[in-house]
Amino acid sequence: MSDAKRYAAEKAIDYVEDGMLVGVGTGSTVAYFIDALAGIKHRIQGAVSSSEQSTARLRGHGIEVLDLNHAGQLALYVDGADECDPRRCLIKGGGAALTREKIIAEASEKFVCIVDPSKQVAVLGKFPLPIEVIPMARSLVARAIVAATGAQPVWREGVVTDNGNWILDIHGLAITEPLVLERELNQIPGVVSVGLFARRPADVVIVGTEPPTVF
Amino acid sequence: MSDAKRYAAEKAIDYVEDGMLVGVGTGSTVAYFIDALAGIKHRIQGAVSSSEQSTARLRGHGIEVLDLNHAGQLALYVDGADECDPRRCLIKGGGAALTREKIIAEASEKFVCIVDPSKQVAVLGKFPLPIEVIPMARSLVARAIVAATGAQPVWREGVVTDNGNWILDIHGLAITEPLVLERELNQIPGVVSVGLFARRPADVVIVGTEPPTVF
Repeated sequence: MSDAKRYAAEKAIDYVEDGMLVGVGTGSTVAYFIDALAGIKHRIQGAVSSSEQSTARLRGHGIEVLDLNHAGQLALYVDGADECDPRRCLIKGGGAALTREKIIAEASEKFVCIVDPSKQVAVLGKFPLPIEVIPMARSLVARAIVAATGAQPVWREGVVTDNGNWILDIHGLAITEPLVLERELNQIPGVVSVGLFARRPADVVIVGTEPPTVF
Repeated sequence: MSDAKRYAAEKAIDYVEDGMLVGVGTGSTVAYFIDALAGIKHRIQGAVSSSEQSTARLRGHGIEVLDLNHAGQLALYVDGADECDPRRCLIKGGGAALTREKIIAEASEKFVCIVDPSKQVAVLGKFPLPIEVIPMARSLVARAIVAATGAQPVWREGVVTDNGNWILDIHGLAITEPLVLERELNQIPGVVSVGLFARRPADVVIVGTEPPTVF
C-alpha cells in the first residue's frame, strides 16, 4: 500500500510547472508528494498548505509556505482522498482537514487527486462522510442529518480541527447523487463544511498502480 | 430609539411560558429582553445564549445558561435583527454573532424577532450582509461573491467572532430572492454562515411602536 501511495504521489510531480505556487493537501499519500516536491523545490515558488501537519513537513524540507490570502488563485492543488468515484467526486476528511482542503481546492485551477487503488469505489459512502461542525451545533446537525438521510452520525470524540471545530462522521450513506447531498448538507446551520467534493471534484485522479492509472 | 427597543423587548415576554428553556440572541434590543426576563426568572428553566456578551448579562441576573448540545430542541428563541422584510426574512450579524444565532434559531420551534421601526425594509440589503468566513478563505470568498453578485465585500478588520473566524460585510446588494441568495452563498467553501435568515425566517416580528406592532 505504501508503494501504491508513493507511485501516485511521484506521478503527480509531472503536473508541477516551473515557478508554480503549489497547493498541498494532507495525509499519508500527500506526505510522499511533499517528499518528492522537495527534490524540485528550487523550481517552485512555494506552497500553500491545508494543515499544520503538512506545513511542518514542507518547512522541514525548506519549502516556503504562504498564506492563501496572499497567494490568490493557485494553478495546482495536489491532495489525497478517502474515496473516489468514477466521476472524480471524492470523500475527504478522514484526517479532519476537510475545510482547509476544500478551500484550497476551490482556489485552484487544477486539482490532482492521488490515491492508492483501495480508495476507488463505484458509489461513495462506504467510508463515513466527515462533516466539520461548530461545537455548539453538534447535536442539532446530527438530528438534522438523521431526519434528512436516515444515516448515522457519529461524533469523532476528542478530535478538534485546525479551525477549533468538531467532526461528525456519517455512517450508512450510499451517495448516488453527491452534488445534491453536498448542497443540502451545506444548508444546515452549524455545518462548516462537508467532506464531499462534488461541486468541485478532482480534475485528474492518479491511482498508484504500476504504472499509475490516470483518469 | 431605546424606548422602541424596550417596547419590543417587553412585548416578547408574552411568548415566554412557564418552565421554558429560552433561546436568547445578542444586541442592544436583546439586552432589554434579558433585563425583562430577569423579572420572571423563577418561571423559566434557563436560557441558551448566542454570545459571550449575552451569557454574561444573563448570568449577571442569576439566570442559568445551558449548552445547546444538552438542551436539545428549544420552544422559543428571541433575538433582534439588522433588517426585516415583510415576509419576516432577516439580515443579522451586525454584532458578529450570526453563526450562533443561526444555530439557535434552527434549534427553536418559534423565533420571535424584536426590532425598532428603523429595521423594517421592503427589500433586504441596504444594511451590508455579514458573512462569517474561515480566515484563510477571506480573499477566496470575497472574489467568489464579487463574481456571483457584483456586490462589494468589505473585510470587518480587527473583528474575530466567538468561533475564531472573520466577517465580510457585503455592500450593494438588493436581495429580492433571499432564499436563493442564502443557498448559493452557503455553497462557497470557507463560508461558515450567511447572515441571511430566509430558509429559517422569524415566525413572529414585534416592532417596538407604542403599542407594539406584531406580524
